[in-house]
Amino acid sequence: MLIVKVGGSLGIDYDAVCDDAAQLINAGQQIILIHGGSAQTNAVAAALGHPPQFVTSPSGYTSRLTDRRTLEIFQMVYCGQMNKGIVERLQQRGVNAVGLSGMDGRLWQGPRKQAIKVVENGRTRILRDNYTGIVETVNAGLITSLLTSGYTPVLTPPALSTAGEAINVDGDRAAAATAAALHADTLIILSNVPGVLQTFSDEGSLIPAIRLDDLETAAEAYAHGRMRIKLLAAGEALHAGVRRVIIGDARGPRPIGRALEGQGTTIA
Amino acid sequence: MLIVKVGGSLGIDYDAVCDDAAQLINAGQQIILIHGGSAQTNAVAAALGHPPQFVTSPSGYTSRLTDRRTLEIFQMVYCGQMNKGIVERLQQRGVNAVGLSGMDGRLWQGPRKQAIKVVENGRTRILRDNYTGIVETVNAGLITSLLTSGYTPVLTPPALSTAGEAINVDGDRAAAATAAALHADTLIILSNVPGVLQTFSDEGSLIPAIRLDDLETAAEAYAHGRMRIKLLAAGEALHAGVRRVIIGDARGPRPIGRALEGQGTTIA
Repeated sequence: MLIVKVGGSLGIDYDAVCDDAAQLINAGQQIILIHGGSAQTNAVAAALGHPPQFVTSPSGYTSRLTDRRTLEIFQMVYCGQMNKGIVERLQQRGVNAVGLSGMDGRLWQGPRKQAIKVVENGRTRILRDNYTGIVETVNAGLITSLLTSGYTPVLTPPALSTAGEAINVDGDRAAAATAAALHADTLIILSNVPGVLQTFSDEGSLIPAIRLDDLETAAEAYAHGRMRIKLLAAGEALHAGVRRVIIGDARGPRPIGRALEGQGTTIA
Repeated sequence: MLIVKVGGSLGIDYDAVCDDAAQLINAGQQIILIHGGSAQTNAVAAALGHPPQFVTSPSGYTSRLTDRRTLEIFQMVYCGQMNKGIVERLQQRGVNAVGLSGMDGRLWQGPRKQAIKVVENGRTRILRDNYTGIVETVNAGLITSLLTSGYTPVLTPPALSTAGEAINVDGDRAAAATAAALHADTLIILSNVPGVLQTFSDEGSLIPAIRLDDLETAAEAYAHGRMRIKLLAAGEALHAGVRRVIIGDARGPRPIGRALEGQGTTIA
């Protein structure tokens, strides 16, 4: 079983991802597709007069400020536009996809962080009206039952808080939790860069492999912005029993096949 | 088993619908909830600079003009905002809801009407770039399997065309097809009027019951606008073996309970 997470940044070729996924699935491979929708959410939020804001945590991770209105727009884009766009592409390629959010069937559940600490101009302050959290439990039963019946699950944030609220969760870490819960062999994380780069913005400086023992050091040394969370997610998946995580590029043809052939950064 | 369709017009109290549904489900009743999202789609489409347009068919039915851009906005609202809003409300009330569009798992499939005839100022013309169609087949197996596992399906258009495209379908008629496929006893269609009215806009002129034999005559005599499609859907459900259809009011508390007690228009 293969877990494929595809991001939501500009440049990602969803047609190529779905071409590739459909070919593998139609050949008998079980795939769970997990996706983002960040760039499109930014565009829709701006068009609707509620432009996106990003915050940085004291430990240096950047994330979307998710107030209740942002969460509504987030759901429109992730669960409506992106999820159903991928389901439609897969259906057109003969794959019987079923698109679900983490709320549906309590697929992804965990605590909501009602108040978050953010760093602004070097000073820490507390934000409330925050709808984010982390995935602690995965309803593996529902996913397995869909797979067994021949459906391909296409999953997206938000998750469900323990109080039953929609919460924005990081898609890479949700993918890691899903891979762990389903005892997947391989987690592929696709975005709009070739993998982990030794020099930020130099696409020729790809690091082809990182050993799990070296992951923290590598993250400190090379990972910037969103790549830090991808390496955090990779570590979580590997520590939970996933055999390998591949961070690959979704900007060209055969993104899944190329990742499986070793293009990108393999962490094992 | 109860099929409850709740519309998308202004004035509908979704909290009341979910309160009522949750009480029945938690007491052991199996319910499939099907919803619309028309008013919210109009608002979002206008805000995104693609205001809604409506067309009238030669036989007098009015429907949303669904070009590809409208379909995308439609999906954002129906599958994102509305569907996940209802799933969240149900989860908060202890119901393990699973929200799906008609595309997911090929739940609702049928032919796309690529070209439609519309009447404008008394003249008929052909429109293309049209993404609408009708539901011909229902994947009852997926719905039944979710119900059996303790999940409550929350379903929404669009459906999937036979070519794998998203198509806007009428929610009332999709609910009728679902009720028929699942051999449901009762279909409740809730909107923002008390039921079928003898005099349009006089809410005191409610017709409490219509016999199936009289349905066509009643539709000709009393039904205006959207109510005509509701009666068409009611007829389709009853002819396919559903025992009764109740057209009720979702603007106050206990909308499902009140419909079951006979408030609204019962057609049997």
